[in-house]
Amino acid sequence: MTEFIPPGTRWFDLPTAFPIKRGGALHGPRLAYETWGTLDTERSNAILIVTGLSPDAHAAANAGNPAPGWWEWMLGAGKPIDTNRWFVVCVNSLGSCKGSTGPASINPATGETYRLDFPELSIEDGADAAVAVVRALGIERLACVVGNSMGGMTALALLQRHPGIARSHINISGAARALPFSIAIRSLQREAIRLDPLWNNGHYSDDAYPESGMRMARKLGVITYRSALEWDGRFGRVRLESDRRDDEDPFGLEFEVESYLEGHARRFVRSFDPNCYLYLSRSMDWFDLGEGCAGTTAQGLAGIRGLERALAIGVQADILFPLQQQEEIADGLRASGCEATFLPLPSPQGHDAFLVDSERFGPAVRDFLAG
Amino acid sequence: MTEFIPPGTRWFDLPTAFPIKRGGALHGPRLAYETWGTLDTERSNAILIVTGLSPDAHAAANAGNPAPGWWEWMLGAGKPIDTNRWFVVCVNSLGSCKGSTGPASINPATGETYRLDFPELSIEDGADAAVAVVRALGIERLACVVGNSMGGMTALALLQRHPGIARSHINISGAARALPFSIAIRSLQREAIRLDPLWNNGHYSDDAYPESGMRMARKLGVITYRSALEWDGRFGRVRLESDRRDDEDPFGLEFEVESYLEGHARRFVRSFDPNCYLYLSRSMDWFDLGEGCAGTTAQGLAGIRGLERALAIGVQADILFPLQQQEEIADGLRASGCEATFLPLPSPQGHDAFLVDSERFGPAVRDFLAG
Repeated sequence: MTEFIPPGTRWFDLPTAFPIKRGGALHGPRLAYETWGTLDTERSNAILIVTGLSPDAHAAANAGNPAPGWWEWMLGAGKPIDTNRWFVVCVNSLGSCKGSTGPASINPATGETYRLDFPELSIEDGADAAVAVVRALGIERLACVVGNSMGGMTALALLQRHPGIARSHINISGAARALPFSIAIRSLQREAIRLDPLWNNGHYSDDAYPESGMRMARKLGVITYRSALEWDGRFGRVRLESDRRDDEDPFGLEFEVESYLEGHARRFVRSFDPNCYLYLSRSMDWFDLGEGCAGTTAQGLAGIRGLERALAIGVQADILFPLQQQEEIADGLRASGCEATFLPLPSPQGHDAFLVDSERFGPAVRDFLAG
Repeated sequence: MTEFIPPGTRWFDLPTAFPIKRGGALHGPRLAYETWGTLDTERSNAILIVTGLSPDAHAAANAGNPAPGWWEWMLGAGKPIDTNRWFVVCVNSLGSCKGSTGPASINPATGETYRLDFPELSIEDGADAAVAVVRALGIERLACVVGNSMGGMTALALLQRHPGIARSHINISGAARALPFSIAIRSLQREAIRLDPLWNNGHYSDDAYPESGMRMARKLGVITYRSALEWDGRFGRVRLESDRRDDEDPFGLEFEVESYLEGHARRFVRSFDPNCYLYLSRSMDWFDLGEGCAGTTAQGLAGIRGLERALAIGVQADILFPLQQQEEIADGLRASGCEATFLPLPSPQGHDAFLVDSERFGPAVRDFLAG
């Protein structure tokens, strides 16, 4: 199994055995993380970032790794999350393959890769692991926890399970529970991987690798991460130049939009472990904050304690984590006694807008953190 | 190859050789159709229905086949398309496998199934074939042409290529061109079929059949035919009862919505020919009414001649043929000098609402035909 670890990654050894919500425990797991800025003497200026399904902990350039990160315009000196003021920690999710322990890691009990022997992972496990890193860094109370997409789920689980862990929260294109449209999309992505004969019940290798299944899963992902509106303007009905087409293949790539998907998929398939993908994808389907309080999702949100301020940002064109879900978060957190704002943005890019629409997301995050 | 022909189907032998827009010709092709009601002596009360990708010509019960059709509540005595008043013809699309000639038919030149030797099919070919049936029935001018989904494309092509063929037109969840989001979805559906090793470049059999690919394609179809809103109310996060789950399969069906998709897919995979699916799907991607006039889509619509009245109905929750496309049709036809109305409906069901939302679509169609 290949893991995909950026240079400069740091590791924290999680408490062992680390209990897993749905049963079992991990022995000797670790979490990959990176930091930016300096923790002040009161340890009061820390921001935690929890990510979507695929990113690593390298959100932006830092001393350990000067390469640009996946949120380079958001994070750094003078940027919306200003590292002159804040000490920022970004963790790679538990269950991922970018440094943290997951299905692509070695199971110390057997000396073999976990594969499907990895315990059933929940969003809540990722939240607990992230909190363990925060605590180990000597931070009792975060200034803010920021979660994007799946990270929006992780952040809410973390706030529910660790009351008082953060003074404020920014939830970006997140959700307090998975809805059936998103479950259907993710189920189909997992089915594409599992149908690939080379997936082989999780026992693939670099030489016999479920590329086709991963390609299908990624293409379906990209379709739901962006928006029809953006693509109309960007691709329209433009055809590929003839030298980029295979005229022998009657159903081959013909339109620019097909080539765009193919390019995205090719870059992804060998840079993310298929079993890790399955585990993290399923953990999102399982997530409902209501479960944590044996009640409704709204009760789950209203029961969060110790949070002073929150901002839930969503995008009108998001079909995967639709706008009503961020409104639900703001409404629910308001009911918890926190000062919560719902901010719908007209970004054309859909669910992934927070990665690219710096003009709208930058000021929104900057203003909230200044408040 | 299996064709799937309802009892009571009638056939019309198309002119032969029947020229194909992108090159080549079909020898001895035929079109399956059904009728309801009686053609009046002036031959002025005829309505043609052109369908979406998968339906057959059996839109409703009739003398030849008393079984309910796919639009049973819309079509019949006293119903919105009232067969006491109208003589209704529904054709199975050229290229389909439900009676009309398509890739699953025998190629008379070889005595073998066409498979991928079928010529490259366009929406315009289907339109010309439908018009040939209308003419053969002695109808010079239709009272109305009704097109749903892909049929909305076919209807527009028919109006463009045969000026004066219809006095009025109802376009339901249709489009005057394919947009990149829909192209991306269909491209992925075709890729799922083509990736199935049993597709075998079109040379499958009933015993070695690309079921997995068809299942994936159909599930993705159903996801885009319905809406997130409807599913939230219908399925929520309800789990399957344990006796309907396979606990041995760690990524197997767990939520009701997954089982719903699986059921839809199972009913579909063996009732539609995979090669026909590929051909019809691709024909939609190619469609742009602007091509027919070497101009823009709007110019294509504005150039339609002889149409007096039109109604373009769309559904807010439709992600596959979004509402702007039906507005574009109404605007464009108005520019042609026709009295055109755009009717957005709040049906929760999405693209497929016209098949199920009788309370909204019934009156809309009835009122237009009465006008």
